[in-house]
Amino acid sequence: MTTIDRPTYRIVGTRPIRPDGVEKVTGKAQYGADVRLPNLIQGRILRSPHAHARILSIDTSEAEKTPGVFAVLTHKDFPVAEDKIEELGESAVNLKELSDNILASDKVLYKGHAVAAVAAINGHVAEEALKKIRVEYEVLPPVLDVRDAMREDAPLLSETRFTKSMSGQASDKPSNIAAITRFQGGNVEEAFAAADHIVEREFTTKMVHQGYIEPQNSTASWNSDGTLTIWTSTQGAFVVRAQVAEVLRLPVSKIRVIPMEIGGGFGGKIPIYLDPVATLLSKKAGRPVKLVMNRTEVFMATGPTSGSSIKLKMAEKDGIITAVQAEMAYEAGAYPGSPVGAGAMTMLSPYNIENFVIDAYDVVVNKPKVSAYRAPGAPVSAFATETAIDELAKAAGMDPLEFRLKNSAHEGTRMVTGVPFPRIGHEECVRAALESPHYQSPIEGPNRGRGVASGFWFNAGLQSSVSVAVNVDGTVNLIEGSTDIGGTRASLAMQLAETLGIPYDDVKPIVADTDSVGHNDVTGGSRTTFASGLAVVEAAKDIQAQMISRASKLLNAPEGELRYEDGAVVSSDGSKRIPFAEIAAAQGRTGGPIYGNASLMARGVGGAYATHIVDVEVDPDTGKVTVLRYTAVQDVGTAIHPSYVEGQIQGGVAQGIGWALNEEYYYNEDGTLANASFLDYRMPTTLDVPAIDTVLVEVPNPGHPYGVRGVGEVPIVPPLAAVANAVAEATGHRFTDLPISPRRVVEELHGLA
Amino acid sequence: MTTIDRPTYRIVGTRPIRPDGVEKVTGKAQYGADVRLPNLIQGRILRSPHAHARILSIDTSEAEKTPGVFAVLTHKDFPVAEDKIEELGESAVNLKELSDNILASDKVLYKGHAVAAVAAINGHVAEEALKKIRVEYEVLPPVLDVRDAMREDAPLLSETRFTKSMSGQASDKPSNIAAITRFQGGNVEEAFAAADHIVEREFTTKMVHQGYIEPQNSTASWNSDGTLTIWTSTQGAFVVRAQVAEVLRLPVSKIRVIPMEIGGGFGGKIPIYLDPVATLLSKKAGRPVKLVMNRTEVFMATGPTSGSSIKLKMAEKDGIITAVQAEMAYEAGAYPGSPVGAGAMTMLSPYNIENFVIDAYDVVVNKPKVSAYRAPGAPVSAFATETAIDELAKAAGMDPLEFRLKNSAHEGTRMVTGVPFPRIGHEECVRAALESPHYQSPIEGPNRGRGVASGFWFNAGLQSSVSVAVNVDGTVNLIEGSTDIGGTRASLAMQLAETLGIPYDDVKPIVADTDSVGHNDVTGGSRTTFASGLAVVEAAKDIQAQMISRASKLLNAPEGELRYEDGAVVSSDGSKRIPFAEIAAAQGRTGGPIYGNASLMARGVGGAYATHIVDVEVDPDTGKVTVLRYTAVQDVGTAIHPSYVEGQIQGGVAQGIGWALNEEYYYNEDGTLANASFLDYRMPTTLDVPAIDTVLVEVPNPGHPYGVRGVGEVPIVPPLAAVANAVAEATGHRFTDLPISPRRVVEELHGLA
Repeated sequence: MTTIDRPTYRIVGTRPIRPDGVEKVTGKAQYGADVRLPNLIQGRILRSPHAHARILSIDTSEAEKTPGVFAVLTHKDFPVAEDKIEELGESAVNLKELSDNILASDKVLYKGHAVAAVAAINGHVAEEALKKIRVEYEVLPPVLDVRDAMREDAPLLSETRFTKSMSGQASDKPSNIAAITRFQGGNVEEAFAAADHIVEREFTTKMVHQGYIEPQNSTASWNSDGTLTIWTSTQGAFVVRAQVAEVLRLPVSKIRVIPMEIGGGFGGKIPIYLDPVATLLSKKAGRPVKLVMNRTEVFMATGPTSGSSIKLKMAEKDGIITAVQAEMAYEAGAYPGSPVGAGAMTMLSPYNIENFVIDAYDVVVNKPKVSAYRAPGAPVSAFATETAIDELAKAAGMDPLEFRLKNSAHEGTRMVTGVPFPRIGHEECVRAALESPHYQSPIEGPNRGRGVASGFWFNAGLQSSVSVAVNVDGTVNLIEGSTDIGGTRASLAMQLAETLGIPYDDVKPIVADTDSVGHNDVTGGSRTTFASGLAVVEAAKDIQAQMISRASKLLNAPEGELRYEDGAVVSSDGSKRIPFAEIAAAQGRTGGPIYGNASLMARGVGGAYATHIVDVEVDPDTGKVTVLRYTAVQDVGTAIHPSYVEGQIQGGVAQGIGWALNEEYYYNEDGTLANASFLDYRMPTTLDVPAIDTVLVEVPNPGHPYGVRGVGEVPIVPPLAAVANAVAEATGHRFTDLPISPRRVVEELHGLA
Repeated sequence: MTTIDRPTYRIVGTRPIRPDGVEKVTGKAQYGADVRLPNLIQGRILRSPHAHARILSIDTSEAEKTPGVFAVLTHKDFPVAEDKIEELGESAVNLKELSDNILASDKVLYKGHAVAAVAAINGHVAEEALKKIRVEYEVLPPVLDVRDAMREDAPLLSETRFTKSMSGQASDKPSNIAAITRFQGGNVEEAFAAADHIVEREFTTKMVHQGYIEPQNSTASWNSDGTLTIWTSTQGAFVVRAQVAEVLRLPVSKIRVIPMEIGGGFGGKIPIYLDPVATLLSKKAGRPVKLVMNRTEVFMATGPTSGSSIKLKMAEKDGIITAVQAEMAYEAGAYPGSPVGAGAMTMLSPYNIENFVIDAYDVVVNKPKVSAYRAPGAPVSAFATETAIDELAKAAGMDPLEFRLKNSAHEGTRMVTGVPFPRIGHEECVRAALESPHYQSPIEGPNRGRGVASGFWFNAGLQSSVSVAVNVDGTVNLIEGSTDIGGTRASLAMQLAETLGIPYDDVKPIVADTDSVGHNDVTGGSRTTFASGLAVVEAAKDIQAQMISRASKLLNAPEGELRYEDGAVVSSDGSKRIPFAEIAAAQGRTGGPIYGNASLMARGVGGAYATHIVDVEVDPDTGKVTVLRYTAVQDVGTAIHPSYVEGQIQGGVAQGIGWALNEEYYYNEDGTLANASFLDYRMPTTLDVPAIDTVLVEVPNPGHPYGVRGVGEVPIVPPLAAVANAVAEATGHRFTDLPISPRRVVEELHGLA
């Protein structure tokens, strides 16, 4: 671990056991599918067999008559939603699109699109009833690829969608291009004209899925007074509450969302799919209703991330990257909202490049609407950038890491948006990679190659609220509202224990429901340890102040002469000292419960950088790429709990390797996803990845008292390019289309494509 | 309603629908018995067949071998508890007694005392297994009556218990008298010597049960890391947490107590019975375990209130009560802790009496340990006092209400403890009773009589914590930790809405679990609307301050020039105004979530007074007493929600009528409770009580911003005496033993006793 100027802490940086660990490994943790309620019935969803069709009619009468059926639902049961962007509090949303993706109204836009739902005494009866629902479709031709969809003659997903740009409407007739965004700086033409070397390439990637273990689920219980409880698997209970409120036009205070434990999300558990359906089924049935997706539904109808097509031109002069021109188109799926903007904004962030023009296209296609997936948009744009950089380094005769170091961004470098970076750690990452045992060792043998790549992710701040209650025995309850995916309970409890100067085991963190804590944005954007951590530190300071006030009574000393230090209140002359536990025990007679809180919109986010090194071997006969060795270097700010940071990095790398080599949504021409199961959708297993070495570089984020940066997303950014660069080294052939699957390797190497 | 000097409010004093109403009337509210969990198994408890016995051995081997049995528990599984008072935080408790009452160790002290427990795949298997547990007892003679137990030759419940007094140990040999307390003032002898009239009587009352609808229940899920979740029916989740922690020697932060809805408590749902048993069964079984009492177990083994014996002597001179001498003995049941002290402290509180000596005895007997029951200790002591006052008024030739008015306590009068009363409303109650249509109407007909009585209850303050979260749509979540028995959600939501100047329907109150809010003491002592209300008002002021700070940004005006008024922030010159909902909607961009909290030890408790009038008719042949008409006058401070206040009064009166006329624990000589079912334990039904008229007198409590006094307990104080006084009027015979059941009426009127 390379630590740069960070203090040593008592608890931060250690590796205690996670509070939720035992519950999870012993099978006691309660997930959404475990919810049991009196009179609970089961729901199932009817899905479109067509990738693109108009719904002419839906006849549910036979289904409704089926014995054991309590309720049948179609989009007619939803409140009418207008097809325009609406503001609700802090969010802006097209309600019709949000609503239609949950249950189709006029059109189905992908195979698997939800069309109707049934709640019945059990799942078998519900499935039988689904078969009795008659849907009349007018089948339309689907468009499945981003470049096809951009063509003027492409089938239109919506006749009323016009292209938007930052300056307003950018098309005079309906289009599948929902939005165009341009970022530019300097003078690209001049730079290209003066270049020593120029590389120009086209890249494509396919839709890939997050592949979380636990399928989406939702259980809803509607009360006849309009209050509602939802138990669900989500990255953000408050987001579920807000979205259900929007779609069903309910006041948020009437909705209680209870977040169950979550079996992975990676961004895919932010949108809602089942919650409004379960809610309205429960309302109709007068009973609580549970819906659980099967794996095929998860693949077909939840949000993967975009397939993409990127045209990139990059110039170098005297070892300096002088210009970038990019046209990038991302598939949004059925409704607008691909992460192409984030892809554009991050693709050059590791570097200091003066001249650039980036055009980013958000394009709808007849596939499921994409959702976030770990550093959304960045891996595929980095795949393009870092491939081109690799080629330019070679052209310039430089070591690829030295080339990156020479061109690295640093504090003050401007992003493509014009905003200057605060203290960042890309140079430190590249240096640590250069010095790593991995990079210092040669790679030998035939068909082997080494690749490197860097990546960047913004990380997010957003809103967090926590409460802290001190118990009479000196232990502390920490009430937070951020879903614990990767160890939030531990990382927040550690920051609380550190700030209060008490043992980690004395803190009990809980993830509360939406009725039981202030607002918290999603566990996403690598924000929780940072932003909820900031709230925890602020709440701890509130507790410290209360402790000083109570100690003042107990010690009979003015508050001004007391300070909080190392888990105790001490007088300024050091003569008096009363420990935390004693003040806690006396709280009832010194003013009542010691109870603090904090809420904030977090500022001071620190972006994250990673530089990865990978060695591969390519079997030219079978096309199989074997990952031999992998080292991930990352600026983690301060690693609150290094084991979890390492776990985040290793998980991100494994997903990136899958994306690079095997994963893809494979569509037939009619829009059928042909590999909608874990047997056919090829995610890497432990047999496919080596032990991943991690190098934690700690460049503390000055915007957080313990220096926290988000760490969860950036590790998935470099692997696509790093693996592709290694394969290029091993084969002498540059692969620009992912995945670099055995079939593709064989076809390209043997000219069979 | 008689309102004395109270402001008019927008919401306080109105009658909105309770937030939990629909869930409850539609059967959706979740009670402890509704808890469902994966792998849940059922527990049953083996209870002593003897009222007093030594446990020589317990053989559980056959029970453990029964197929389907997961765990068998005896007291050996509990941590060893010392037989002395221990301090834990704010509570002082004899751990051995607390622990032994949950599962007997060396002795059983009442029939129904828990001895062992089994957890099995279902209740039938558990019951079969209970039969296979062999317990060897040495049966001892029981002592069942308080006066018998006080005798020197009485069987001793404990050989190591000595009588305690305020000055230390008061007996030199073991005794069933656990404690003696004396209150005295003035010179009783002189006053008696100078009296015009003296009345001297002995009174007895029997144990009676609260008769809540829902039996005790507990479900526990133990994790192998020592954390624990308990779902239970309780008046105070934090008390359950503290007591389980004490008995099982666990840190409180490891225990999460989730309070389910409660089907009545009246004080009886404060002690724990099942929770530690469910916990250790779950620990042994490795599964969650549910225990639910049946009604017979509730009667035999949970805490009723004390039977009592009171000797009272009272003197009058010139219409003034000049002296009281009392010796009162209360049954504590199996372990010390009767409410005799509260009985002594409240019995003279409606009056200004200079000379008094009260000796109060806390006495153990072989019956279940008593627990709190609505104004614990006061109804039976008021029965004695108010009967004697009735006789003295008659002797003095005065109207009984005029006599009470002449002797009434008022602000500044000293309690028997010497503490002066703050602003109180007894005089106002008596005047309102005098002026009531009921008292103004004559009572006519044979065998009919009218009785009156007053009563007092302290009410409690104690600790409360709340949090308030503002939603972006302008609605508000109120997070409280006080069990909602009689409408807490409504009464707190109303105070929040009033203070914030927003609609009542925009507030959603929730009763949170022990992990999700700061400490809250029990819903008891009529404290919640008062003390949690104080916390709500304080939290609302916190929200107001945050609103002003946010509005300052939105209005671009200094905070000092803004104030909060009528649900909006306005500038001091009135030129700018921004409503609550707008500030709420903008919270994300003005600093993050608006989230406030408050915690306190409530001061400024206001005591409550009631004066009741009742008309009865006595059938001299059958002995049946029919209640013809009932009017309850009460100083309620400010009635936050008058319907609930009226409901509390009517409920208290109904229970008091039952206590006066029919209810009693009927024991056979061997200590068997002969009427341990609702068929045999005669609680009044709607056919037994008339519509109860209420007169709400509002003398605002200066210790609360809206003038709240507790209202739930004092209504049960006067009925015993009021009914007895009415029966005396109707029959010419003074009944001094309760209940005045048909058998007793016939026996005493016809000299058959």
